Amino acid sequence: ENNAARDVRLAVVAGDGIGTEVVEQGLLALEAALTGTDVRVSTTDFDLGARRWHTTGETLTDTDLDAIRAHDAILLGAIGDPTVPSGVLERGLLLKLRFALDHYVNLRPSRLYPGVASPLGNPGDIDFVVVREGTEGPYVGNGGAIRVGTPAEVANEVSVNTAFGVERVVRDAFARAAARPRKKLTLVHKHNVLVHAGHLWRRTVEAVNAEFPDVTVDYLHVDAATIFMVTNPSRFDVIVTDNLFGDIITDLAAAITGGIGLAASANINPERTTPSMFEPVHGSAPDIAGQGKADPTATVLSVAMLLDHLGLPDASATVEAAVAADIAERASLGGRVRSTAEVGKDLADRIAG
Amino acid sequence: ENNAARDVRLAVVAGDGIGTEVVEQGLLALEAALTGTDVRVSTTDFDLGARRWHTTGETLTDTDLDAIRAHDAILLGAIGDPTVPSGVLERGLLLKLRFALDHYVNLRPSRLYPGVASPLGNPGDIDFVVVREGTEGPYVGNGGAIRVGTPAEVANEVSVNTAFGVERVVRDAFARAAARPRKKLTLVHKHNVLVHAGHLWRRTVEAVNAEFPDVTVDYLHVDAATIFMVTNPSRFDVIVTDNLFGDIITDLAAAITGGIGLAASANINPERTTPSMFEPVHGSAPDIAGQGKADPTATVLSVAMLLDHLGLPDASATVEAAVAADIAERASLGGRVRSTAEVGKDLADRIAG
Ligand SMILES: CC(C)[C@H](C(=O)O)[C@@H](O)C(=O)O
Ligand SMILES: CC(C)[C@H](C(=O)O)[C@@H](O)C(=O)O
Repeated sequence: ENNAARDVRLAVVAGDGIGTEVVEQGLLALEAALTGTDVRVSTTDFDLGARRWHTTGETLTDTDLDAIRAHDAILLGAIGDPTVPSGVLERGLLLKLRFALDHYVNLRPSRLYPGVASPLGNPGDIDFVVVREGTEGPYVGNGGAIRVGTPAEVANEVSVNTAFGVERVVRDAFARAAARPRKKLTLVHKHNVLVHAGHLWRRTVEAVNAEFPDVTVDYLHVDAATIFMVTNPSRFDVIVTDNLFGDIITDLAAAITGGIGLAASANINPERTTPSMFEPVHGSAPDIAGQGKADPTATVLSVAMLLDHLGLPDASATVEAAVAADIAERASLGGRVRSTAEVGKDLADRIAG
Repeated sequence: ENNAARDVRLAVVAGDGIGTEVVEQGLLALEAALTGTDVRVSTTDFDLGARRWHTTGETLTDTDLDAIRAHDAILLGAIGDPTVPSGVLERGLLLKLRFALDHYVNLRPSRLYPGVASPLGNPGDIDFVVVREGTEGPYVGNGGAIRVGTPAEVANEVSVNTAFGVERVVRDAFARAAARPRKKLTLVHKHNVLVHAGHLWRRTVEAVNAEFPDVTVDYLHVDAATIFMVTNPSRFDVIVTDNLFGDIITDLAAAITGGIGLAASANINPERTTPSMFEPVHGSAPDIAGQGKADPTATVLSVAMLLDHLGLPDASATVEAAVAADIAERASLGGRVRSTAEVGKDLADRIAG
């Protein structure tokens, strides 16, 4: 007996490169996890990404967006292709989804699963989550350039930060920290240089801390944060940071916990006025696309986050446990590399139990 | 017989926290390295930093700046103190020096010396240099905020990038790459999101590549660059990047090569119309200031960069070799921790030979 919606409409944006391959396995895992529950998922495939752009010149139309809005959640594979000018799909599709659907909490957990090889010699226990702001900062697209291509070109990028936007994500991060055993929140910014944005973030964290007095707060400049990521990642519990710093440190966080093949993420609208979006942190990896080489684990872990969001914590835990068990046995494969579909099947089998 | 200036006027800005301690040892190393050469260095101490600000409210006056300009180079310790509001000294002193003196090449070598413990399990050979742009990007101080402290606050930061500024630093980076055995240049940016600035950087690298056809160029998004820093740092030879990305990845680069206690840097004006500035990458470390605990090695390595800049490559190599030898023997100290002055004396003795 749980509070989950009984009929879940899932928008599927497989996207580019390895996106299709990993999403297929993610859906198998989802199906396996829902077996025996009273939740049925119906999926709608959205043809978005490089192929669509080449065919129609469109990235994400209002019609697409309206159709996606009519869903309860989105599963996204990967966006980006070398045949499309850089930024067109990223800004016009992926970021447009995050911004239009007001995904202001970009949640990126980092956990070093037993059996995973970290590039760190002595990684220790790693189990933290980055709450990356998703709708502001240098990602707003408020840049511009003049005299492009001439020696007098000036190209600007504007990072926009509002009390409204910072406060809501900081409050979300505090709530997550308060719900964890260590109750620790680290603000990552660069307030000694980006003084206006940085001080807004700092003041906001100080103010919201009053609502969560049992959460311990500290602060790191983003440059120092990258040092601790490799020298003492156990120090982190919940990190809250802006869109760009969050982008950077979550790739690093993925690297120290075994690579982006394992890193899941959720783009959440906590008010649930729009569908939240679940996607692996990795990109479209065009170099290995279509070869069955991609690791679908990050997508399957993103499905676990989706299940949690749908109010199915037990199903979510089952998926996570299946991934942990699969990972723990990888060493015993004796170097044999499984295909995308094989990993997906192994995971789905474990989930089905 | 070399082309070095015979009389070198060195401006010394010891600054805050451990700055005084490490600069003292850097000067001893400099003295030792110059013994037997016909170069004499005269130093002028500048009282800049937290104490000066508390006493006078000043960070760096026009008079200070004019006096510093009358020198051939600057040795800087560290700037920043918890008793001064964040940003005041960083923007008003350290960055003001870099900007006013047009230090557009912020050079930060990363080398894993034999005997140094890297946090990476399998670091491989690490020997690269980051050419960080020093006078543009989000560091220009073109931000601002309205309705500060109210729920309607908006705080913006503007990253300014010009063809003029990008081209000169990119050309410098190409020249450095061309002079190295591997002749490889990696541009690090985020042109799929920061499309205006990013495309200016990318076009510039492509254009300047024509002048250096034997240099191989590749590109990494800054997030991906942090992954390679921990999974395959040997892939890097010369990196060119903007001011903020350079700040972030050079701290990470320092971490994987044994920590910021060893990371040197040079803020260079290649036209030599102003004094260049040599400083360790680390900060003022107020927590250990005044205790003789700081490692002066980064400052001594910055002195090696200063010697190189003064046209004394042999003296520079002697200092570097002394550091390498000292580091190689650290393991044999059996855990005994030397004081700042002890490390400084050991290095100076080695340099004196
Ligand atoms: C593809 C790119 C636009 C995206 C980002 O920068 O947010 C990616 O790096 C990520 O972290 O999800
Ligand atoms: C102290 C700070 C302003 C400075 C910077 O951000 O450049 C420091 O981090 C550095 O890397 O030299």
